[in-house]
Amino acid sequence: MRSTNMRKTVRIGLIGTGFMGKAHALSYLAAGNVFEDISRPVLHMVADLDAARAEAFREQFGFSGSTTDWESLVTDPDIDVVSITTPTLFHKEMALAAIAAGKHVHCEKPLSVNAADAWQMMRAAERAGVRTATGFNYLKNPLLKLAREMIASGELGEIYDFNGIHAEGFMADPQTPWSWRCDARGGAGAIADVGSHIVSVARYLAGPITELCAKLDTPVATRPVSAGATKRREVAVDDIARLIVSFERGCSGTLQASWLATGRSMQLAFQISGSKGTLAFTQERMNELRYFRAGEDPRGNGFRLIEAGPSHPPYGAFCVAGGHQLGFNDLKTIEMAEFIRAIDRNSPASPDFREAWEIQRLIDAALRSSRERCWQVL
Amino acid sequence: MRSTNMRKTVRIGLIGTGFMGKAHALSYLAAGNVFEDISRPVLHMVADLDAARAEAFREQFGFSGSTTDWESLVTDPDIDVVSITTPTLFHKEMALAAIAAGKHVHCEKPLSVNAADAWQMMRAAERAGVRTATGFNYLKNPLLKLAREMIASGELGEIYDFNGIHAEGFMADPQTPWSWRCDARGGAGAIADVGSHIVSVARYLAGPITELCAKLDTPVATRPVSAGATKRREVAVDDIARLIVSFERGCSGTLQASWLATGRSMQLAFQISGSKGTLAFTQERMNELRYFRAGEDPRGNGFRLIEAGPSHPPYGAFCVAGGHQLGFNDLKTIEMAEFIRAIDRNSPASPDFREAWEIQRLIDAALRSSRERCWQVL
Amino acid sequence: MRSTNMRKTVRIGLIGTGFMGKAHALSYLAAGNVFEDISRPVLHMVADLDAARAEAFREQFGFSGSTTDWESLVTDPDIDVVSITTPTLFHKEMALAAIAAGKHVHCEKPLSVNAADAWQMMRAAERAGVRTATGFNYLKNPLLKLAREMIASGELGEIYDFNGIHAEGFMADPQTPWSWRCDARGGAGAIADVGSHIVSVARYLAGPITELCAKLDTPVATRPVSAGATKRREVAVDDIARLIVSFERGCSGTLQASWLATGRSMQLAFQISGSKGTLAFTQERMNELRYFRAGEDPRGNGFRLIEAGPSHPPYGAFCVAGGHQLGFNDLKTIEMAEFIRAIDRNSPASPDFREAWEIQRLIDAALRSSRERCWQVL
Amino acid sequence: MRSTNMRKTVRIGLIGTGFMGKAHALSYLAAGNVFEDISRPVLHMVADLDAARAEAFREQFGFSGSTTDWESLVTDPDIDVVSITTPTLFHKEMALAAIAAGKHVHCEKPLSVNAADAWQMMRAAERAGVRTATGFNYLKNPLLKLAREMIASGELGEIYDFNGIHAEGFMADPQTPWSWRCDARGGAGAIADVGSHIVSVARYLAGPITELCAKLDTPVATRPVSAGATKRREVAVDDIARLIVSFERGCSGTLQASWLATGRSMQLAFQISGSKGTLAFTQERMNELRYFRAGEDPRGNGFRLIEAGPSHPPYGAFCVAGGHQLGFNDLKTIEMAEFIRAIDRNSPASPDFREAWEIQRLIDAALRSSRERCWQVL
Repeated sequence: MRSTNMRKTVRIGLIGTGFMGKAHALSYLAAGNVFEDISRPVLHMVADLDAARAEAFREQFGFSGSTTDWESLVTDPDIDVVSITTPTLFHKEMALAAIAAGKHVHCEKPLSVNAADAWQMMRAAERAGVRTATGFNYLKNPLLKLAREMIASGELGEIYDFNGIHAEGFMADPQTPWSWRCDARGGAGAIADVGSHIVSVARYLAGPITELCAKLDTPVATRPVSAGATKRREVAVDDIARLIVSFERGCSGTLQASWLATGRSMQLAFQISGSKGTLAFTQERMNELRYFRAGEDPRGNGFRLIEAGPSHPPYGAFCVAGGHQLGFNDLKTIEMAEFIRAIDRNSPASPDFREAWEIQRLIDAALRSSRERCWQVL
Repeated sequence: MRSTNMRKTVRIGLIGTGFMGKAHALSYLAAGNVFEDISRPVLHMVADLDAARAEAFREQFGFSGSTTDWESLVTDPDIDVVSITTPTLFHKEMALAAIAAGKHVHCEKPLSVNAADAWQMMRAAERAGVRTATGFNYLKNPLLKLAREMIASGELGEIYDFNGIHAEGFMADPQTPWSWRCDARGGAGAIADVGSHIVSVARYLAGPITELCAKLDTPVATRPVSAGATKRREVAVDDIARLIVSFERGCSGTLQASWLATGRSMQLAFQISGSKGTLAFTQERMNELRYFRAGEDPRGNGFRLIEAGPSHPPYGAFCVAGGHQLGFNDLKTIEMAEFIRAIDRNSPASPDFREAWEIQRLIDAALRSSRERCWQVL
Repeated sequence: MRSTNMRKTVRIGLIGTGFMGKAHALSYLAAGNVFEDISRPVLHMVADLDAARAEAFREQFGFSGSTTDWESLVTDPDIDVVSITTPTLFHKEMALAAIAAGKHVHCEKPLSVNAADAWQMMRAAERAGVRTATGFNYLKNPLLKLAREMIASGELGEIYDFNGIHAEGFMADPQTPWSWRCDARGGAGAIADVGSHIVSVARYLAGPITELCAKLDTPVATRPVSAGATKRREVAVDDIARLIVSFERGCSGTLQASWLATGRSMQLAFQISGSKGTLAFTQERMNELRYFRAGEDPRGNGFRLIEAGPSHPPYGAFCVAGGHQLGFNDLKTIEMAEFIRAIDRNSPASPDFREAWEIQRLIDAALRSSRERCWQVL
Repeated sequence: MRSTNMRKTVRIGLIGTGFMGKAHALSYLAAGNVFEDISRPVLHMVADLDAARAEAFREQFGFSGSTTDWESLVTDPDIDVVSITTPTLFHKEMALAAIAAGKHVHCEKPLSVNAADAWQMMRAAERAGVRTATGFNYLKNPLLKLAREMIASGELGEIYDFNGIHAEGFMADPQTPWSWRCDARGGAGAIADVGSHIVSVARYLAGPITELCAKLDTPVATRPVSAGATKRREVAVDDIARLIVSFERGCSGTLQASWLATGRSMQLAFQISGSKGTLAFTQERMNELRYFRAGEDPRGNGFRLIEAGPSHPPYGAFCVAGGHQLGFNDLKTIEMAEFIRAIDRNSPASPDFREAWEIQRLIDAALRSSRERCWQVL
């Protein structure tokens, strides 16, 4: 039996070919294969300033074409969705152009260099009626969906505390050279780069944050201008951020971010405690969620190590048997599938630009709080 | 810039649409995207006895066609590679037919119901000069490649011991109904189903096994003929297997297999000790390898938790940053890429049918050893 | 051979027979046996308001006598050391009386209900020239001594961050009745009860704290007046405390305390990161310290799990072989031995009343910071 | 109030002042303090061939006297209990002499160099009507008592499997010199030294063992005659032992022992699976027991980490609050308390010489099985 594939398609234009560019290409393709219910993403065009690089990328992933001109990409009538994976500094211009051309837009996190820009981007998209998404991929973990459900349904009782951190060590060596991440024109430092993830998790699980007090530090005040250079340049952004926050629901918590955490490559971790239970998680063991259920006989009770499995959708779309483990690219695949599904259904994706703006607002407030040494109401 | 993709392709025919059929489809597609150096796999035809299921599968993954007739698939001139994911009982007939048609063959593990059949399959393939592979996917973990290198290079010193197990709990409930896995016509039980994995790991890391003593048990002697039935049917295969083995290199070890390990979903674990170091691993935390290096100051020494990262090829093909974690489907992707690469280079794949025959020989010897209550030389 | 034991002795008077009273009695006795270099503690007198309880305690531990009158105990000329294990509210009066009588004083933590009282106690002791100690027992862990050494010697490089918490769940159930711990007359709540421990650890490892911003919450605002009662009473102290702190050495950190952490019984944990390494610890696994050493080949590097052993003094005094593990009472034994050794040598014990006053100062500042919603300089 | 302590006493004579001699002295003393219901052990006499060492030991722990003549110790009419902590080779002569003198005898493990000797010792004690105990201290862990209860009460359902190991690395370096442990006159090697512990655990939890097949290896065939020597001496005993065993209750299992496990200091670990649950434990985390309970909703189920606490007697005798952790010496204290209690009540202690003989029988059978390469019925 031969037939034509009647499944609808959605055509992707991708800007950027770095770490995240590759992750987007792979996960759009995988999303179409793993999930039957969505329009199949088709890789249409990739843009990179470097023509050879763009072309090699095109060939590797099977895009129909490549270009060095992102502006032609965002206006290409054959493209439905634009994915932006460039440094933060360029997000706004690209996203606004894509929105203006009527495209649905996926933009990597952090959405923009500050909340004002994020507001503009979000408002433009909402007015244009296009769908948006931002790359807070860790929210796509089936175990985080489980955690959210358990909290929302009251299984943890009244929430007392959210204790979250995202710590990595990729900038821990003072000899690691200065890069665009150290440039304040690109937005904040660790609080934006990794901290935005733990902020997204906090909001996803515990809801809106209403006020905060923050302290941002830059222990590595200067860095070599390039690898091995003796000349050093000032680091204008934070290396570490520490926040005390209040949630709208009534409880408080802490959020921490660092890119100086020597030896840590993915300590995106939280503990959330309530009157009836506690959940603990670290992305370092992304297929495990620890759960303590209060009220059982202490003789045989303790934190349960829940392993991701088919009872945690959409794990089953990847593998019918438990214990087989998802990887990072699978989270990205879920992210893309959910975005395409939102487009298909003409309903909001999550997290969208509005959510990303809320996160950016919190980051801006943290910078103000640290500078002014006082609490900030959001 | 638009161009035709000049990358070579290899056309896949897939038999079976279950758990492993889906894993094959996904991973052939992903392999072409993740790895640039291999011919791009193209999904050509899928076969399943159930026409509707085959057609739905075709549509989901973008095969060119579907069929209910596996025999026509294996002889289809447009197909280069046949992937077999049916129950073990059918492997031999299908593989021999595909080999006879000059196809390269990937066949899921265990390769066959006994060593004699595996021998036939292996010999047929070697005579025909086609490439073969078997689905011992856990060997594809970058951290197992690291372990193998460390052992081979002498970093662990003289190897003293290999202690391995593969335990799962999917048959632990005595009310779980009888299935084809319980039928001796399909080969051995847990020792073949999960045990073949730990055998493959033992051989991959520590080399050939020369003798063994085994005890196989069937604690759940009967099972309901179907879910909820009161009538029960005899389980004719092993639920648990325990082996003491000797390696050609001089050391000994143990290998254990169980599908009655209540609560375990993927306890494929080993500890290998040598005079200069020890490695410990469990597939439950597949992105972690524990390593103790002897000879350092005990004050600050201990088992190191190595996290998978770019220094463990081919992790970097999936993600440039450490700590992001691979998942099960990524292992399968590496497996398919290595198979295609072997075809491209006209060199043996690993593990191929010869390796799978060696594993099957060991399983057969374990059955004999348990029956005759004595050691068996391989 | 029979002989008289010529070892010097030190005679102990103990006030209080609860959890800590028992721990003191056991550990004074054990200290004399485990450590040969100190005067042997002799249990002389125990005081409790309940005569029968005091007498039973006397008999269990072999005190020479018991009393209901703590004032006679502190003035007993046959007593060298007074140990105070009553509720915090009574510490000051008892300690001052003991100091006035020229006794060396061990007082459980927190030292007092506020810093002013702690100051008085400390000053009285210093003027009297008696030795003092407070029960921050977790500092006595050989692995914390190792951590301190590694930090002090520069093995971690420049310290970037201290992230500490002490969370337990013993008050997490809103039906757990009101107790003296909920009464503000006895001092602060969780920040004093468990938080003082993590403050002591932070200071022990990273040094003095110069400023802080804090938020204290009381999510369980009322509690039953007694077990099962429907009438509820207001909780006047904090259930959870969150602090951002600055250290004199230049880095910052966070300190958190909670007695509402459902399911946690001893989450006294920290992570301290520096330019050359990171240490991570939780008292839940008190015989393990995790250590990442930067600068090694990432292929085989990772956090090391250091197990307590003879290379971590004074572990070897308890057991000559590694891996045998110390328990909580062993920490208390080290504490008592160090106190007696300080008395023997006429040198300051650590942590003494001065250190306890510093900790109390910080707690008071945290209360002010939370009330006034602003940073406090210490 | 002053009074005479009316508690009954039991007078101890201790032979040997090494690692275990010290552990006995400490734990007899602690047992009398921690447990109120037993006669208080009084340290009467210590014997060591080295007079100065014996005297120093006497003084440290407060024995009434010391001697170099163990024979006078075992016949001393003022002694009720003799504790034997010498190398295995001397156990028999000393124990028989003590029994002949009517003493209750505690003898460290392994009880003797072979089962015949153990039989003599056991029979002598039973005929004399004295109480005996052997030092399988790990059985005294409150969490092992819990495990035993859960198995006995059927909470784990039908037991399918016992997978046990005791691996340490103290002999892993081939340059570690020859010692009395390597001399076959002193009994077997790793199987006796560490293996006897896991045998004791297997029997304690899963009951009698009826047959076995074993392989014993000596990878380090020679060792320097002394530290740093170039001359090497043959190791006449096993370094590693691997056993497959059948239990009387119907299930099978494995037992492994090694003193060549580089990096392991206390891997005394087991996993026991049944139709309704699984328990997993390692002495490396002796205050934790992992428990999976079948039959719960998989969405929120997983292995529970049970922490030792007051609901696991006799933990509460050491500390009223959970999470405070016991240490190795606390296990020894429980062991001594149970022995004294058995003497007080004139009832059998456990494990006594009869149990130790059973363990020794199994070790002898393992040696035969390995030599003859066949199964042995016990």
